Amino acid sequence: MPDSLTPKAAQTRAAILATALGLFREEGYDRTTMRAVAKEAGVSLGSTYYYFASKEHLVQAFYDELLAEHEAAVEDVLARESGFADRLRGSLDAWLAVAEPHHAFAAQFFRNAADPASPLSPFSAESAPAREGSVALMRRLLEGSDAKVSRRLEGRLPELLWLLQMGVVLFWVYDASTGQQRTRVLVRGVVPLVDRLVRMSRLPVLRGVVDDVLTLLDAVSGNGES
Amino acid sequence: MPDSLTPKAAQTRAAILATALGLFREEGYDRTTMRAVAKEAGVSLGSTYYYFASKEHLVQAFYDELLAEHEAAVEDVLARESGFADRLRGSLDAWLAVAEPHHAFAAQFFRNAADPASPLSPFSAESAPAREGSVALMRRLLEGSDAKVSRRLEGRLPELLWLLQMGVVLFWVYDASTGQQRTRVLVRGVVPLVDRLVRMSRLPVLRGVVDDVLTLLDAVSGNGES
Repeated sequence: MPDSLTPKAAQTRAAILATALGLFREEGYDRTTMRAVAKEAGVSLGSTYYYFASKEHLVQAFYDELLAEHEAAVEDVLARESGFADRLRGSLDAWLAVAEPHHAFAAQFFRNAADPASPLSPFSAESAPAREGSVALMRRLLEGSDAKVSRRLEGRLPELLWLLQMGVVLFWVYDASTGQQRTRVLVRGVVPLVDRLVRMSRLPVLRGVVDDVLTLLDAVSGNGES
Repeated sequence: MPDSLTPKAAQTRAAILATALGLFREEGYDRTTMRAVAKEAGVSLGSTYYYFASKEHLVQAFYDELLAEHEAAVEDVLARESGFADRLRGSLDAWLAVAEPHHAFAAQFFRNAADPASPLSPFSAESAPAREGSVALMRRLLEGSDAKVSRRLEGRLPELLWLLQMGVVLFWVYDASTGQQRTRVLVRGVVPLVDRLVRMSRLPVLRGVVDDVLTLLDAVSGNGES
């Protein structure tokens, strides 16, 4: 698919994606075929494959769209707030607001994305663009804030903040409370805690802990393998 | 089902459970019926239902069995070691050893247990006996150790250690490395880190963090709801 689309092509692509998400939600991801997507969108099967090489590409496009919406929603927060905790809370709240319409889909879809070996996992090679975009957003959040962290932690903190966001997402996926109220409680509680730990990370007594955490992260992610 | 079984009845029950686990592994949990379990075990359908009221009861029995094997394997560690880190590492290693034969089953089964609303989730009401047994084991591990923790944390730490174990289990379920080697790396790294944090929890500088963590735990688990 070419990098830039004509307005009409972009519209067709968007229509196919929206139709697919609707079918995933109603019929389930496993039961939805590319053929059904094409038919429901009123587009030829060839056209559908032109825009999306597979069902998985449809999901990756959904991730990209969520990221773009999240980025747009966070812009305001980053322009307005300089406090690290305010920026982090604003970013997590913005993610919840952007993702809310997709909650029903996320809950049934998660079965397909939970396995890290699946291309649909947020940890997969295929999800790298969306993941790297989210980590970059966390980096902007951190760098423009008043947080003072050690140089070693500074390089890795955006990734840790992204893992935190993935933890919030996991909690949210299974949050059956009205309007996912429980996830908001989690965000309200976890942000001051993270803020406190980040502030304390430069204290001599905690430097060893920070080192341990980063070493462990390398070891389990494979970066530290011998 | 009566609380105590005759040796023959206990044997029949064990045979049904072993057969069911084999079918779950080979055919998948969703596709296995109680009828197929009965047939494969060479037991009448009525007998099968006498011992296990549903497929979910088979899984709960599997959880109970895993717990009993884990308890037995940890006895040695608790008798031998008094260091908190040694006891924790021993307990996690024992769990990995006990669970290893079931890894293939766990990976395909996890789809059914990941949703906290499922009776098969470790967080469900139905899983309370196995969960409470595990938390009790963590309490024994802690109380017989050299760890010195604040009174407030002491009451909640067994539950936090159980959550840690659930985190290790989640990592293990998806660990595709040979012999789940990566999970062993995680255990080796996470134990000293937890040991360090537990030791530090009495430092004035960290008391606020401990309070924050416990308050957050109450809030998201519903204990702290107003």
